[in-house]
Amino acid sequence: MNSSNLKTFLTSNVDMDEQIIREHIENLKKIQVKKGNFLLRQGDVCKHSFFVEEGLLKYYSIDEKGKQHILQFAPEGWFVVDRESAFFNQPSQYFIEALEDSVVTMIDVDMFASLSLHNQSFALFNNKLLHNHIRHLQNRINLLLSATAEERYLDFIRIYPDLLLRVPQTLVASYLGITPESLSRVRKDLATKKHQKQ
Amino acid sequence: MNSSNLKTFLTSNVDMDEQIIREHIENLKKIQVKKGNFLLRQGDVCKHSFFVEEGLLKYYSIDEKGKQHILQFAPEGWFVVDRESAFFNQPSQYFIEALEDSVVTMIDVDMFASLSLHNQSFALFNNKLLHNHIRHLQNRINLLLSATAEERYLDFIRIYPDLLLRVPQTLVASYLGITPESLSRVRKDLATKKHQKQ
Repeated sequence: MNSSNLKTFLTSNVDMDEQIIREHIENLKKIQVKKGNFLLRQGDVCKHSFFVEEGLLKYYSIDEKGKQHILQFAPEGWFVVDRESAFFNQPSQYFIEALEDSVVTMIDVDMFASLSLHNQSFALFNNKLLHNHIRHLQNRINLLLSATAEERYLDFIRIYPDLLLRVPQTLVASYLGITPESLSRVRKDLATKKHQKQ
Repeated sequence: MNSSNLKTFLTSNVDMDEQIIREHIENLKKIQVKKGNFLLRQGDVCKHSFFVEEGLLKYYSIDEKGKQHILQFAPEGWFVVDRESAFFNQPSQYFIEALEDSVVTMIDVDMFASLSLHNQSFALFNNKLLHNHIRHLQNRINLLLSATAEERYLDFIRIYPDLLLRVPQTLVASYLGITPESLSRVRKDLATKKHQKQ
């Protein structure tokens, strides 16, 4: 099995000798995760960033009433990691679970920082990756504070264009911070608007 | 005027020659910002990180109905920057405004990345700073999705222990994503609980 997606992702984003990238990638462990299996559970310390080669992961918390709250979906080509746990060595508040049978490359949490110290291009890339993560999180906070259910849903489609058919509506609603009933209304309203335009 | 808070912050967090830090700090522009004045407006491209030496800033969006939504407060010793605008060269969606008369050091947005390329200790520090930012944003998203108004309020007090007397209740409510009425109820309930314990 080759770490093809991660290699493609890195070689197309980092101005770094392909041979060096290949050497680093080849040493990484790639695992198969069956739907419903966990890569991280609440209470564990997160030791890896997970890069999704195939499949789909969900990253979520469970509140005291047992309700799931989705922090992130990670389809093919996405990273997911609990940075609080991994980089500050704390027990995680979250779970990472396979929503579909998946293939995942496990990246030691120090690898990106260590590569950054030895290669300036990689350092700039890693910096950009972190800033990109921050802008997405900040945008999500702004939407949770200020946007209507419809605006949040449209943003979801923009970020995850191919997930609507792969993720149960209850989980989409959970990601958006709205009720499943409210999500149904939004979808119905949008379908009506689209129909009226035609 | 000396950039004393920023210098102290850096020398106590980065294993880097104090002389080098001082040289970088001395070149930075420090400005006074009167209460109600802006460091960034929606539509501008953000060119600086702002480090608050004295005073208090608010970082917020305004929705279509003219309502403010607080992304962050920045009291003494905090940084604030619109990373989406600054690092991806986009017009900002946000405002940065002085809530009190403030003194602010302006840091060119590339300075931290550039220092990171020349000093490994600074690179590790900058990396930690970005990860710390990410964990706070993620925690906030989790609270907005899953926590009660009381839990969000208690988290606010933990993060900003000295801001309750400096920030109007309407802005605290806006930060928490709850109504001012709900915030009043939470404060009343907590005061009753505290009274009952005594």
